[in-house]
Amino acid sequence: MKKRTALFPGTFDPFTIGHESIVRRGLALVDEIVIAIGFNESKNFYFPIEKRLEMIRAIYANEPRVRVESYNSLTVDFAQEVGAHFILRGIRSVNDFENEKTIADMNRTISGIETFILLTEPALTHISSTLVRELLRYNRDVSNFVPQQSIHLLTSK
Amino acid sequence: MKKRTALFPGTFDPFTIGHESIVRRGLALVDEIVIAIGFNESKNFYFPIEKRLEMIRAIYANEPRVRVESYNSLTVDFAQEVGAHFILRGIRSVNDFENEKTIADMNRTISGIETFILLTEPALTHISSTLVRELLRYNRDVSNFVPQQSIHLLTSK
Amino acid sequence: MKKRTALFPGTFDPFTIGHESIVRRGLALVDEIVIAIGFNESKNFYFPIEKRLEMIRAIYANEPRVRVESYNSLTVDFAQEVGAHFILRGIRSVNDFENEKTIADMNRTISGIETFILLTEPALTHISSTLVRELLRYNRDVSNFVPQQSIHLLTSK
Amino acid sequence: MKKRTALFPGTFDPFTIGHESIVRRGLALVDEIVIAIGFNESKNFYFPIEKRLEMIRAIYANEPRVRVESYNSLTVDFAQEVGAHFILRGIRSVNDFENEKTIADMNRTISGIETFILLTEPALTHISSTLVRELLRYNRDVSNFVPQQSIHLLTSK
Amino acid sequence: MKKRTALFPGTFDPFTIGHESIVRRGLALVDEIVIAIGFNESKNFYFPIEKRLEMIRAIYANEPRVRVESYNSLTVDFAQEVGAHFILRGIRSVNDFENEKTIADMNRTISGIETFILLTEPALTHISSTLVRELLRYNRDVSNFVPQQSIHLLTSK
Amino acid sequence: MKKRTALFPGTFDPFTIGHESIVRRGLALVDEIVIAIGFNESKNFYFPIEKRLEMIRAIYANEPRVRVESYNSLTVDFAQEVGAHFILRGIRSVNDFENEKTIADMNRTISGIETFILLTEPALTHISSTLVRELLRYNRDVSNFVPQQSIHLLTSK
Repeated sequence: MKKRTALFPGTFDPFTIGHESIVRRGLALVDEIVIAIGFNESKNFYFPIEKRLEMIRAIYANEPRVRVESYNSLTVDFAQEVGAHFILRGIRSVNDFENEKTIADMNRTISGIETFILLTEPALTHISSTLVRELLRYNRDVSNFVPQQSIHLLTSK
Repeated sequence: MKKRTALFPGTFDPFTIGHESIVRRGLALVDEIVIAIGFNESKNFYFPIEKRLEMIRAIYANEPRVRVESYNSLTVDFAQEVGAHFILRGIRSVNDFENEKTIADMNRTISGIETFILLTEPALTHISSTLVRELLRYNRDVSNFVPQQSIHLLTSK
Repeated sequence: MKKRTALFPGTFDPFTIGHESIVRRGLALVDEIVIAIGFNESKNFYFPIEKRLEMIRAIYANEPRVRVESYNSLTVDFAQEVGAHFILRGIRSVNDFENEKTIADMNRTISGIETFILLTEPALTHISSTLVRELLRYNRDVSNFVPQQSIHLLTSK
Repeated sequence: MKKRTALFPGTFDPFTIGHESIVRRGLALVDEIVIAIGFNESKNFYFPIEKRLEMIRAIYANEPRVRVESYNSLTVDFAQEVGAHFILRGIRSVNDFENEKTIADMNRTISGIETFILLTEPALTHISSTLVRELLRYNRDVSNFVPQQSIHLLTSK
Repeated sequence: MKKRTALFPGTFDPFTIGHESIVRRGLALVDEIVIAIGFNESKNFYFPIEKRLEMIRAIYANEPRVRVESYNSLTVDFAQEVGAHFILRGIRSVNDFENEKTIADMNRTISGIETFILLTEPALTHISSTLVRELLRYNRDVSNFVPQQSIHLLTSK
Repeated sequence: MKKRTALFPGTFDPFTIGHESIVRRGLALVDEIVIAIGFNESKNFYFPIEKRLEMIRAIYANEPRVRVESYNSLTVDFAQEVGAHFILRGIRSVNDFENEKTIADMNRTISGIETFILLTEPALTHISSTLVRELLRYNRDVSNFVPQQSIHLLTSK
């Protein structure tokens, strides 16, 4: 049985306990997960990409089956570069579903890379990076929504 | 790395090329798939369960990584009985998504068994067992919608 | 320019002002509409098929561009039988959309017959045959929800 | 300020902790809630209506602001009979939303009675009467899914 | 029975007859509604916030149960500041539903404040601030889509 | 029978084989289609409007029943200007459906112009201008996703 590697791409601005849940559950299914932060010049991010890499690496410091990388190419090209045969995605809602389906279909068509989906746990469906940023903007406590190991990195942009 | 087995439960009345696509793509992700036909006394089926078992076994006669079984218990209990750590499901549409999410959440809650999802390939989203049965009722050709190896078994109920 | 005929299939149990709106607006686009009531032995209907034919024919007694028929075959076969090159459907909601898309895709695949969609007018989206039957069961007035010309036929089953 | 009464209609076969959450949160908004079990001859129920009344009354034995009744009429007529000016409904998902919208629009049109909606708490979205019945059929423990005070009544049909 | 106050937050750029319908129907359920216009520096608005406040205050000049305010904080914090125990929202469509559910779940989690939902009346579901602005851009008449009392304020930005 | 003209409005940045399929199938239903590219100053486009006009005109150089125009006004006003009595739209997904319904309802309300919908063929649902632009950004081959006759125009912006 060959080693199975999945790419978990996203912007992770910031990485939440919802993302953490997907990675934990995904590790039951594959041998290795590469968390991959995509560059996207047309969007304004709350945390710079170096900070986001640092936060996620802090979370998985003791998990040898998780790697954290950034990339600036087509997602399927980066998957092939790191030896991933699958893309892993979490879906929270119907809106997510339609977007993910379109992208997954296109990725399969142009590269043959398959996407598998885990459904967000019910207790986490309302947690999104967008809402965490909204709370941060008004100086509210977000320690219930991001992984413990990354909290100390949130304070200083 | 331990052997990974997934349960692919359904009624498969009949098994279509849409189901076949999910199994083929799922085998890239896990080592073994158990296709499991659930009894359900409250529904009327077009093909009796023995015929459905026969049809699906004909399709996978030469695929040692696929087993075909029937069951009359909770899906998660049958998964544990056959040593499956995952449930595999295909989703075609938004309606499917909501139903699958509810069932997957309940299955995780009561047993810890995780469900992973593959999205139906675009060219197959309109193919369903319901529509195949509708064609069969009016004696229309369905050979484009069910796997080759099972076609000869469709004629005689 | 050749004559354009569309089939408007349904169960119409009963035909509502929502259906009437689709036919009226469809007649702006095609030259003739054949309203077609499908037999379906597995469902229990409120009004027998003869009564439904009578009600709809009363509504279009003075409209030579509308014919009303019943059929017991695949919808696409009946379309070809009456010379219809299109199927016309109204969509009220997201649930409708997904069902209609699946059926329309299958119909195009097996026969080449195209389906075009009109969207239900906002003020009529809550009117359905199901809700009219619910009102009839409790002897409530439904005269705001079915076309004028068919009201006198509702009283006696 | 006049007394505000809301009707909470359903089949409650059985009443779950999801329903209990809606009632508790609804009581913050209105002064009184009438839980109303509708008769529906065309459906087969798991628990007879007397048992369902008994279970729900056991749950609210010490809550004077909740009444539990059964009815066999249009929901809006029963609302008026018990002096309710609102209908209260919980929505778990997109599928629920579309059905509820259609019914709420029709109820407003024929009676002027308004429906207000509470959204199911994320941790409860996967709990439905359907899934509880499925567990009961296979003799699984359901004590996490129905209110404490009704558990002793589940054993004997 | 204590006084019940609900916050109705939005951007209201401009306030339409769809918003007016939600407020009117919400006043049947609560004693007071605070219409609250949120600042959002990252968006470009058609009407400046002062103009929007003026328009909405003109509409409710004779309704002592409605207050109109602007705020620049988390919505739940502003709710507590004005003594509102509920947030009121209108939902037009499935897309709205998913967004509102996520926000309502987060608001309940961080503050305990409950959101109740009214469904947009069918005849108004197609009316949105976005479409009114589109009409204004091309100098079309919008008097059917905004409340009478605010029309004279639309002309001069 | 009078000539039937439909407007097919969009941004077409760029025009894909998905758009081409809608036009081809729409020509079975109407006599003439006017493809209309809307100006929209607030969006950044990948291809300038002159280039998009040139690409689409290349595709329909030999189809006298198709005209290609740009416009800077309300869509319904431009429809009337070119003598179109209908607007034609393709819908790929549930998200599309809701947006299209809102716009179609508003267009009917302000002008009486009707919108008819064709559903995207299953094999094309994952093809969008957005995804084609994403591929172009990374210099990937897009010749499977845009009509043959326009490919030579893609290379030079």
